[in-house]
Amino acid sequence: MTFPSIAILSPGLLGGSLALAIRQRMPGTTIKIWARRQESIKKVLALGIADEASTDAPSIAQDAGLILFCMPIGSMPDVAALIAPAVHPDALVTDVGSVKQPVVEKLGAIFRGRAHFIGSHPMAGSEQAGIDAARADLFEGAVTILTPVDSTPRDPLKALAAFWQSLGCRVAITTPRAHDEAVALISHLPHLTAAALVQSVIRENPLALDWRGNGFLDSTRIAMGSPAMWAEILAENREPVKKAIHAMIENLSEVTKLLDAEETGPLEQYLAEAGAARDRLKQKAIS
Amino acid sequence: MTFPSIAILSPGLLGGSLALAIRQRMPGTTIKIWARRQESIKKVLALGIADEASTDAPSIAQDAGLILFCMPIGSMPDVAALIAPAVHPDALVTDVGSVKQPVVEKLGAIFRGRAHFIGSHPMAGSEQAGIDAARADLFEGAVTILTPVDSTPRDPLKALAAFWQSLGCRVAITTPRAHDEAVALISHLPHLTAAALVQSVIRENPLALDWRGNGFLDSTRIAMGSPAMWAEILAENREPVKKAIHAMIENLSEVTKLLDAEETGPLEQYLAEAGAARDRLKQKAIS
Repeated sequence: MTFPSIAILSPGLLGGSLALAIRQRMPGTTIKIWARRQESIKKVLALGIADEASTDAPSIAQDAGLILFCMPIGSMPDVAALIAPAVHPDALVTDVGSVKQPVVEKLGAIFRGRAHFIGSHPMAGSEQAGIDAARADLFEGAVTILTPVDSTPRDPLKALAAFWQSLGCRVAITTPRAHDEAVALISHLPHLTAAALVQSVIRENPLALDWRGNGFLDSTRIAMGSPAMWAEILAENREPVKKAIHAMIENLSEVTKLLDAEETGPLEQYLAEAGAARDRLKQKAIS
Repeated sequence: MTFPSIAILSPGLLGGSLALAIRQRMPGTTIKIWARRQESIKKVLALGIADEASTDAPSIAQDAGLILFCMPIGSMPDVAALIAPAVHPDALVTDVGSVKQPVVEKLGAIFRGRAHFIGSHPMAGSEQAGIDAARADLFEGAVTILTPVDSTPRDPLKALAAFWQSLGCRVAITTPRAHDEAVALISHLPHLTAAALVQSVIRENPLALDWRGNGFLDSTRIAMGSPAMWAEILAENREPVKKAIHAMIENLSEVTKLLDAEETGPLEQYLAEAGAARDRLKQKAIS
């Protein structure tokens, strides 16, 4: 199943990269882009990444076989309510938000009986935001997690998986809640940890920043992500994130105890386990 | 002041990279390498990175104007005691260890009245270890921190600074204690945080590792460093590291509180401050 026409709602880093990737990998597909501001429409048309672009969401969404919500998750319900009466009943609707339980609840309810909504989360991004950072290969080799619910029919789920696979993604399927708990650990915790690392240095000894090596730079790169977007993601996933922070604090306390031990063996063992697990990720090819 | 002959004690990642960098940037300098094992001597000679190599430390050190200790810090005092009677009284002795207070105390005492010892810490490295990972450009653009004490004469300090600068380093000078407190935050804390991040995922939800994106990979890369070397570094710098972990735990607890707040503004502010500080590091050219 292919989509003759795909609507991208909001052309930021992810929406813009989707447009570039679809153009490259699905020639012949009509790409329609909605943006909130006329200025973004002009930019999209100037970049030549859309066949049609407009600030009128229903007109962009109405004929599309696949509709991609690419805006911040807090803005999704309003736009969904606006387009829901206009979409084709066979349309497949998805989003690329980093938290799935609240999005699937809200958008699932809005599109119920009007189209097929299934949540998606491509684990791809950049500390840069906006269409200027968009790249056609952003999704290549990334994992995209799909979060159907019990009532999701089989065919739209297969079509959505095929769409992401054709962009070069490996697809995983789980529930919205299991997704949110996993990404709290694998994505949200690293993000706030990077911010807390920078804050720890600023507050304790800001001059030490002058002496950073590549290790510090790598481990804090993601702290440069959009503060507004990340504050929203973390707040939307509050309980799993708090649980993840708690696990991290427990681990840091354990390191403190290991440091106080007479022998360095147990500390070395702790570091070796972590290093071996991290090393296996490097070796495992994305398939 | 240049050194006609330089001794490198232990050809691992740092010692091997020093040999390559000296050969490239200081043609005409005689490079003498000591290694504990005959196997390493063979490798060094096969790679052609030394003019002379031996397992006999005093013979390697005796004529050198500059002696570089590049082994794990726990092994330094024994080798220092072995070579101290043989070194030239004008020789400049330094090390590249990641913790300075214990090294400066021990090696300073051993070389007192026999040669000039000053601690060095080039903030350069890799998660890979050993001579096979050595690179001539490892020190280019890195900061090297020198840690003289009150009794350090001015000329050897200037000569040591000039040596590191000629390898492409920016040189900073501080006390051993101030160094150890700063690197506990800027280097040791990020290292153990990377390990604790991986451990948090392994213990809470190991399957989530399958869904990692580039953010997780970047922020945990340094967890792949040598567990034995890092356990030793962390234990040698125990008190400053414990203070740094405490600061990190305080920051993570603060994020938990910010998550519980009704508004996301303060959380966004916290992330924005960290992101802006990290962004300034990216922009600031190493000079």
